[in-house]
Amino acid sequence: MHWRALIRLFGLLLMLYSLSFVPSLILALVDQDGEWWVFLASLVLTASVGLLLWWPNDHCDNELSVRDGFLVVALFWALLGLFGALPFIFGLHLNLTDAVFESISGFTTTGATVIDGLDQLPPSILYHRQQIQWLGGMGVIVLAVAILPLLGVGGMQLYRAEASGLTKHEKPTPRIGETARAFWSLYLGLTVTCALAFWLAGMTPFDAVGHAFTTVATGGFSTHDASLGYYDSPLIEAIAIVFMLAGGINFTVHFVAWHDQDVRAYLRDPETRAFGLIALGGALFVSASLYWIGVYADGWQALRHGTFQVVSILTSTGFSTATFSDWPLHIPLVLVILSFIGGCGGSTAGGIKVLRVILLAKLGVRQLFQFIHPHAVLEVKIGRRLIQEEVLLSVWGFYVLYIATCLLLTVAMMAAGLDLESAVGAVFTTVNLCGPGLGEVAVTFATVDPVVKWLGIFGMLAGRLEIFTLLILFIPAFWRH
Amino acid sequence: MHWRALIRLFGLLLMLYSLSFVPSLILALVDQDGEWWVFLASLVLTASVGLLLWWPNDHCDNELSVRDGFLVVALFWALLGLFGALPFIFGLHLNLTDAVFESISGFTTTGATVIDGLDQLPPSILYHRQQIQWLGGMGVIVLAVAILPLLGVGGMQLYRAEASGLTKHEKPTPRIGETARAFWSLYLGLTVTCALAFWLAGMTPFDAVGHAFTTVATGGFSTHDASLGYYDSPLIEAIAIVFMLAGGINFTVHFVAWHDQDVRAYLRDPETRAFGLIALGGALFVSASLYWIGVYADGWQALRHGTFQVVSILTSTGFSTATFSDWPLHIPLVLVILSFIGGCGGSTAGGIKVLRVILLAKLGVRQLFQFIHPHAVLEVKIGRRLIQEEVLLSVWGFYVLYIATCLLLTVAMMAAGLDLESAVGAVFTTVNLCGPGLGEVAVTFATVDPVVKWLGIFGMLAGRLEIFTLLILFIPAFWRH
Ligand SMILES: [K+]
Ligand SMILES: [K+]
Repeated sequence: MHWRALIRLFGLLLMLYSLSFVPSLILALVDQDGEWWVFLASLVLTASVGLLLWWPNDHCDNELSVRDGFLVVALFWALLGLFGALPFIFGLHLNLTDAVFESISGFTTTGATVIDGLDQLPPSILYHRQQIQWLGGMGVIVLAVAILPLLGVGGMQLYRAEASGLTKHEKPTPRIGETARAFWSLYLGLTVTCALAFWLAGMTPFDAVGHAFTTVATGGFSTHDASLGYYDSPLIEAIAIVFMLAGGINFTVHFVAWHDQDVRAYLRDPETRAFGLIALGGALFVSASLYWIGVYADGWQALRHGTFQVVSILTSTGFSTATFSDWPLHIPLVLVILSFIGGCGGSTAGGIKVLRVILLAKLGVRQLFQFIHPHAVLEVKIGRRLIQEEVLLSVWGFYVLYIATCLLLTVAMMAAGLDLESAVGAVFTTVNLCGPGLGEVAVTFATVDPVVKWLGIFGMLAGRLEIFTLLILFIPAFWRH
Repeated sequence: MHWRALIRLFGLLLMLYSLSFVPSLILALVDQDGEWWVFLASLVLTASVGLLLWWPNDHCDNELSVRDGFLVVALFWALLGLFGALPFIFGLHLNLTDAVFESISGFTTTGATVIDGLDQLPPSILYHRQQIQWLGGMGVIVLAVAILPLLGVGGMQLYRAEASGLTKHEKPTPRIGETARAFWSLYLGLTVTCALAFWLAGMTPFDAVGHAFTTVATGGFSTHDASLGYYDSPLIEAIAIVFMLAGGINFTVHFVAWHDQDVRAYLRDPETRAFGLIALGGALFVSASLYWIGVYADGWQALRHGTFQVVSILTSTGFSTATFSDWPLHIPLVLVILSFIGGCGGSTAGGIKVLRVILLAKLGVRQLFQFIHPHAVLEVKIGRRLIQEEVLLSVWGFYVLYIATCLLLTVAMMAAGLDLESAVGAVFTTVNLCGPGLGEVAVTFATVDPVVKWLGIFGMLAGRLEIFTLLILFIPAFWRH
């Protein structure tokens, strides 16, 4: 490990991050909500720590190795999570557990919350909370599009730009920095468009920006306890559906569509196609179930709420217009399964990711055919692309660790006192970066034991870091030279 | 398909099976419990149908193809399940759903029941019920040791006798018929020993034989509603533990140990070793949990009930001395996870099987190491044996289909009205061939909707036929020439 170079990097990062308190500070001063000192203190503290880390190590700008890369990625979320929690401690007097939970939930774009009574919070604090998710989304895009494919996490090498076959051009941009800038422009563009749409549909400018932040980031924090249900507006829900789906699509695909000015790029990408079909099929199935069981006597209302909730959970956003955990029979479980599928790779969404699920399903079916034709050589393809066995094994490894992590977390949460339904709800919603759960954690994590909250923090980090990047830190061989 | 040859085979099979009603008939006559006509009618009906199937096709003794093999295996369980249900219909006036559920639960060695009030049933019916499981166990041994490895189901080619590396001798016996006879002798020997042990420990001869049948078969049917808890005898429980473990070990390993007169054969087999370690670790963890939470204030009682329940669930037997679903916190979930691991391949146990779980775990760990050393060529080994990637993919296909089947069954059972806990309980206990579940099906399936019972029947058949052998029948390509 190049420790001093790492420390220098994190010093720079914290100084940069301290600037993110400025908008909240200005908002507090303009609004005169009395919270300006919260953000000033957070800014000064974060910048000072950053300076102290950076200054003594400024000359240590070694190239970082791949091994360092894992540590950078893991610490990025953990450290920003810690400092992003400062305003919750200073301003809302949350204890450390709650403040870190809320902040990590933001940076990982999970959207689970321990705060009850959002509508009464000072606007500057609310803004800070929404902005955390937006920044987390920016981090994820770089992570998912530029870093994970390089590290080769769980089949993510499939997304290596030069190998993706998405475009006949050369890879979008040659270096991580340029890739990041190109994708951030897209992300910013989507956010601005979304904010304008929300505003035109009747939100206040404050709410429009705040919800645009967490829609495009598939984060799901809201400024109201009732989430998007607060507005009771089919138009706002429709806008949210469009931008949640956009947030759940691979940003490389967005890039190609934008670069070529051709929406057919979305249809050409097999993962985006499958994602669309899963969303459509899920929406129809859940809506039909809602109507058939009689939760909504009106077919239109069933379709409205069914579609919104399916898109919200599948993209791991977690906005709600209804408490789905109260829906009867099989519907909550279907939504839980959709949340495990998640969005596309290279997006801000959580879950196992559509491409991996396709590969898993294709392998299951292939083995059935292998039986019927024992001597046939059956290949696995995505679109016209042959998938190497090495990648298949990598996806398998990912899946095994994903499920093992979920099982162990469920056992641990039950040991900490949750019943089965709540534990399943808490695990799926944190590891898949969703937000709302089942049972006791259907709406918030406010009432659960601190141990459960820390397990949830671990789950959110594991989910955001695609399991591998976090678990690898616990392997002794990683630390040996 | 060689239809007429298949029909001829099943005709012969039914005529043979009709003889299995004779012991119950004799018991009914000796005991004068008035049920002799039930078994006479079942015998005559089964034999007649068999005769009608066999007679017109007697000249059609073509060789069967591998494809026919799948159908033989699937129909074997379904058809015997149907005819084994006759005494429950004639004697207990169960409806068709309940009678078939009980019979399929027997033949698949699951042990889930719809009957409440076992202690009041006529002995001849009880005997019939116990004997079904014993016969089911005999069928499974042939299936798992001789047929599945030939068909190559989900990595079962690992168990091909000549490839197993278990023994320095040639493969145990050259042909399916001789293999079956050798393993049935072992099975019979284990059963007789177990019955003697139970009898010496204080059971009536009737109970001793009945429980020996269902212990060695890891079936779990009992002649008492309270299961083995009826005796409240640590000695009987210890005997059951030994023979449940024996039933959960690969019969090829038993064969080698018996042939070489060397118990170290068990230690030399990596799957048996892992199975032992999982049983030991699980027993210690659950016992410690029971003591720590205070379910049993006495450490000895915690160890006694914890160990018994872990072995009973891990081997998928399902005997109980306590209702584990009432145990607090994480304990039921840990037992559910153990039931998914199951016993060794080539045994009568259910579940994913220890060897497959080891391979899955090794793959997850390998992918973590592959990250740290991206260019290393890392092999997966069991003991000293290198596992081919083809076998790994086969295991993966199995696992994907196993989990997909469980998820779909859970959704379907919740759609039929079960709550999450009961649905999880009903699915794990049927697919893993366990017996007792959670929630509403913690003890019996008596109260659930008929739809749930049929889903359970599907689950038990899918679990017994290692998923593949059942699902393959639903693939159109299987039926095309
Ligand atoms: K979210
Ligand atoms: K059983």
